[in-house]
Amino acid sequence: MAFPTKKLIDDPNDVVTEFIEGLVETYPGLQYLDGFPQVKVVLRADVSAATYDKVAVISGGGSGHEPAHAGFVGEGMLTAAICGDIFSSPPVDSILAGIRAVTGPKGCLLIVKNYTGDRLNFGLAAELAKSEGYKVETVIVGDDCALPPPRGIAGRRGLAGTILVHKVAGAAAAGGLSLNDVAAEAKHASEIVGTMGVALSVCTIPGQVASDRLGPGKMELGLGIHGEPGAAVVDIQPVNVVVSHVLQQILSTETNFVPITRGERVVLMVNGLGGSPTMELMITAGKAVPKLQLEHGLAVDRVYTGSFMTSLDMAGFSISIMKADPAILQRLDAPTKAPYWPVAADGNHPPAKIPVPISGSRSAKTDEPQSKPQQLNEQGQILEIAIEAAANAIINLKDNLNEWDGKVGDGDCGSTMSRGAKAILEDIKNYPLNDAADTLGEIGSSIGRSMGGTSGIIYTIFFKAAHSHLKASSHSGVTSKQWAEALKASIAAVSKYGGASAGYRTLLDALIPASLVLEEKLNSGDDPCTAFILSSEAALAGAQSTVDMQAQAGRSTYISGEILSTVPDPGAMAAATWFRAAALAVKAKYES
Amino acid sequence: MAFPTKKLIDDPNDVVTEFIEGLVETYPGLQYLDGFPQVKVVLRADVSAATYDKVAVISGGGSGHEPAHAGFVGEGMLTAAICGDIFSSPPVDSILAGIRAVTGPKGCLLIVKNYTGDRLNFGLAAELAKSEGYKVETVIVGDDCALPPPRGIAGRRGLAGTILVHKVAGAAAAGGLSLNDVAAEAKHASEIVGTMGVALSVCTIPGQVASDRLGPGKMELGLGIHGEPGAAVVDIQPVNVVVSHVLQQILSTETNFVPITRGERVVLMVNGLGGSPTMELMITAGKAVPKLQLEHGLAVDRVYTGSFMTSLDMAGFSISIMKADPAILQRLDAPTKAPYWPVAADGNHPPAKIPVPISGSRSAKTDEPQSKPQQLNEQGQILEIAIEAAANAIINLKDNLNEWDGKVGDGDCGSTMSRGAKAILEDIKNYPLNDAADTLGEIGSSIGRSMGGTSGIIYTIFFKAAHSHLKASSHSGVTSKQWAEALKASIAAVSKYGGASAGYRTLLDALIPASLVLEEKLNSGDDPCTAFILSSEAALAGAQSTVDMQAQAGRSTYISGEILSTVPDPGAMAAATWFRAAALAVKAKYES
Repeated sequence: MAFPTKKLIDDPNDVVTEFIEGLVETYPGLQYLDGFPQVKVVLRADVSAATYDKVAVISGGGSGHEPAHAGFVGEGMLTAAICGDIFSSPPVDSILAGIRAVTGPKGCLLIVKNYTGDRLNFGLAAELAKSEGYKVETVIVGDDCALPPPRGIAGRRGLAGTILVHKVAGAAAAGGLSLNDVAAEAKHASEIVGTMGVALSVCTIPGQVASDRLGPGKMELGLGIHGEPGAAVVDIQPVNVVVSHVLQQILSTETNFVPITRGERVVLMVNGLGGSPTMELMITAGKAVPKLQLEHGLAVDRVYTGSFMTSLDMAGFSISIMKADPAILQRLDAPTKAPYWPVAADGNHPPAKIPVPISGSRSAKTDEPQSKPQQLNEQGQILEIAIEAAANAIINLKDNLNEWDGKVGDGDCGSTMSRGAKAILEDIKNYPLNDAADTLGEIGSSIGRSMGGTSGIIYTIFFKAAHSHLKASSHSGVTSKQWAEALKASIAAVSKYGGASAGYRTLLDALIPASLVLEEKLNSGDDPCTAFILSSEAALAGAQSTVDMQAQAGRSTYISGEILSTVPDPGAMAAATWFRAAALAVKAKYES
Repeated sequence: MAFPTKKLIDDPNDVVTEFIEGLVETYPGLQYLDGFPQVKVVLRADVSAATYDKVAVISGGGSGHEPAHAGFVGEGMLTAAICGDIFSSPPVDSILAGIRAVTGPKGCLLIVKNYTGDRLNFGLAAELAKSEGYKVETVIVGDDCALPPPRGIAGRRGLAGTILVHKVAGAAAAGGLSLNDVAAEAKHASEIVGTMGVALSVCTIPGQVASDRLGPGKMELGLGIHGEPGAAVVDIQPVNVVVSHVLQQILSTETNFVPITRGERVVLMVNGLGGSPTMELMITAGKAVPKLQLEHGLAVDRVYTGSFMTSLDMAGFSISIMKADPAILQRLDAPTKAPYWPVAADGNHPPAKIPVPISGSRSAKTDEPQSKPQQLNEQGQILEIAIEAAANAIINLKDNLNEWDGKVGDGDCGSTMSRGAKAILEDIKNYPLNDAADTLGEIGSSIGRSMGGTSGIIYTIFFKAAHSHLKASSHSGVTSKQWAEALKASIAAVSKYGGASAGYRTLLDALIPASLVLEEKLNSGDDPCTAFILSSEAALAGAQSTVDMQAQAGRSTYISGEILSTVPDPGAMAAATWFRAAALAVKAKYES
């Protein structure tokens, strides 16, 4: 069953004129001739026929191939593009209007794709322009390699290789060459390029229901760019196989479509047909390059990957191969202001990949493994006791945490937290406990490798931020004020990266009150031990207050307020619990 | 019934690495860290952390948004892009590897889209890098305007507006600013941009069957870029209406997402979501600009239209509006080598449209209407007689031509030819018959306005080419040699533009022998009248010989040889007939 394809289109009859309106809004270097709906000509805003001192390069044809041809208008490429209706050759009057608008004393070159309608309409316009006194040359491009060499006229169609001819001619014209020389370069370019297309779907003509000619599991080889049937319909195959077939066909020594033999240099264009996204085109290009090198013995000097000459929304691609020599590369690399000519594709390739850096060049830390000192100093002893107490408190609270989390989350808060706590207890034997900053960094690493989940990352950030802060601020021992500031810095990092603040029903609702009270008590002259204890009481109170909070972060946001009001936030309770346990352990140590 | 969408993909698990391989083949300025499949980092080939003297600008996130983010790596924009798997945040180790690879003494800025996974992974990598001694700042972008102002974290998502933030930060870094200043500019940019998306289809995750969540006739407003459902599903509407709604939502003074008010200047980005071709995006841009100007009172300084941050193959678009001031425009206009930043979108707009030129500036001819001279000279009299005889012969042959054409074509050759002949007989009273060149030009015009079809164009080309040739070669009278050369030039033009040669079973099979005999007889000293008669006999013989020819042009190519061998080509017979009639008339005139 077929439905009309959904499109960003108002009136199917106006698609070409509306395309042009959007195009000139986007690119200030482009203008159009005010002759809608009949005359649809896009031209360089900086060219006036009366004074233009270069050869004008003009192309065009039916629309539906965007960005071709209007998107290639710009200094160094096309001077004007004549747009027909969808898949219809433009009328003679439009072409003649375009010629008159941009052609100066040096004349103009018409680059025409090999379709009867285009040949005749551009041909008549050329003859009429000549009658008016213009110098006009015409080059017809037929780069299609899908069909065996033709007996008659309906032979090689003009496909995406035409874009490369535009570029060569445009660069030659920009270089100041005469009409004959520009035409000769364009003709030469047209004779050394071959193209073949592959369609995965048919295209949707504006206002029509898409044909389902292909059907599921089928693809079409050797198609044109107007939705006309291809040379063969085959079962769909991996892109690898399809690319091989297409390259074989273009470079076949039997048909001899392009004069390219082993050991030569080429330019590759992978052209999307409109419906295939950049990722797929890049995958195709990534397959084509090594095949050209290894299977065909060709050096690939340039790769152009993108949607250059499309068939409306058709899925699929075409590959064009052009013989490359220094003169051609110079034309292809020449600067242009045409909006859709690919930038940054010139120049020679450095090695594509470089090694992953192992440790930072800015690193202040040595790469020696950390280890527990032979002899702990006083701070080291306190730190050891506090860490062990905090970790054990989490392990003891595991079942409660899981139970609370079962109501408001996915029920694994206790298990997750306790994995981290166990890892810390295991690793503590190697912590450099006399260096508090590095010890906090190691706690972060223990958590990072063990806990998992969002809370694992959040706690890793918490301890790594404390480590960075203490590294920068403390030198020998850590003062109580420095501890308080490190807590503040860690909370700031968690809040910034995690996105939560006070009142969001998270661990911050335990840690923020703890931090505030710690700072306040130290500022008002309380001894550090007392300040820590008071701070841990604030943490517990804060955690318990989450019972009355709406969740604004994490899974609990999906839980009703009624259920939330029966339990505190398990993350907040966990934070308060380890913080409180540490404080009590420090107090006990001082009192002993 | 849903089928797997057909894709240019080999292994769905490898799409990101294969994309990167194609990308670096296409753009020699890009490299990747050799850490596939885990580490997927694209970076500037010309940057080495040890010696880099600018702030590194790093972004990234899940893949499936191509060309974002890797396509925006290049001087003046991103220094590195960290790629996750499809729609998955990259792991911390990848981000850290990217930071280490490009960050020099001036530090690095991480630009992170507002998704929990990205915030946490980039956040942890930032903290780890700081521990290693790097200077790191982070800016989080949430430009989504689809949902009402959020209570909690899951608020404004990072969408295509992020690309504009990349550009501002990259240009600031390229300008040599300090890390703090680059971060401040990026943060400012992130606060003055708003985005909203519209989806016409859902996207196809590689290797999966596309969901048909939307169904026919429906579209989704306010979606994210990961295929997540939008804020609302509505009936599909014309792009005009949709664009209005989106602009209203972004610029709403109720939600006040972006600090933009009437009378200010803005930048517009119309971003395709992957499945919408250039034509549709341009149509959308063409609607958005006048609405911003007229409905919202905003001056539009820049328009960027293209597929910048996609959702795989999703059809649809997003619109981003950024407040513009000279400082922002300077950053957006600054040069960059990033492959996918749009070129030629900077600068001020000239008038978008200019008048269609009426007649050529190169024209040698005056615009006065042609008219028949009061007094015909001898050549004028002969020309008049020849033209009338030729036209009448065609009218008399009408039924035969239609009958022959009924067997090998569409049966209207006689009617078409006779339309042209009648027009000539009507117009001849205004032909400037004393000027043979201009008279042939006028015959071309009579045919052009009356005949229609391919043969109408071909005969127009024939007579216009003769006109150009005689205009250039003859001055007072036309010599018999000049007539012969004009015939040759006309045949060459018809052959070039029409694509046929001798033996293709076309009118050329009458005219080519005629031309050859005319030249030969004149060269061997025959009098012009005799030469013309002998030439017209060759034309008739040539036309009759088409009975034995295979068709290689036109509709007859579809007809079997058996049928073709019963009749001559009607086009060739018509050509021989008018040519013969003219010759006989000239002979009669001379003999009288």
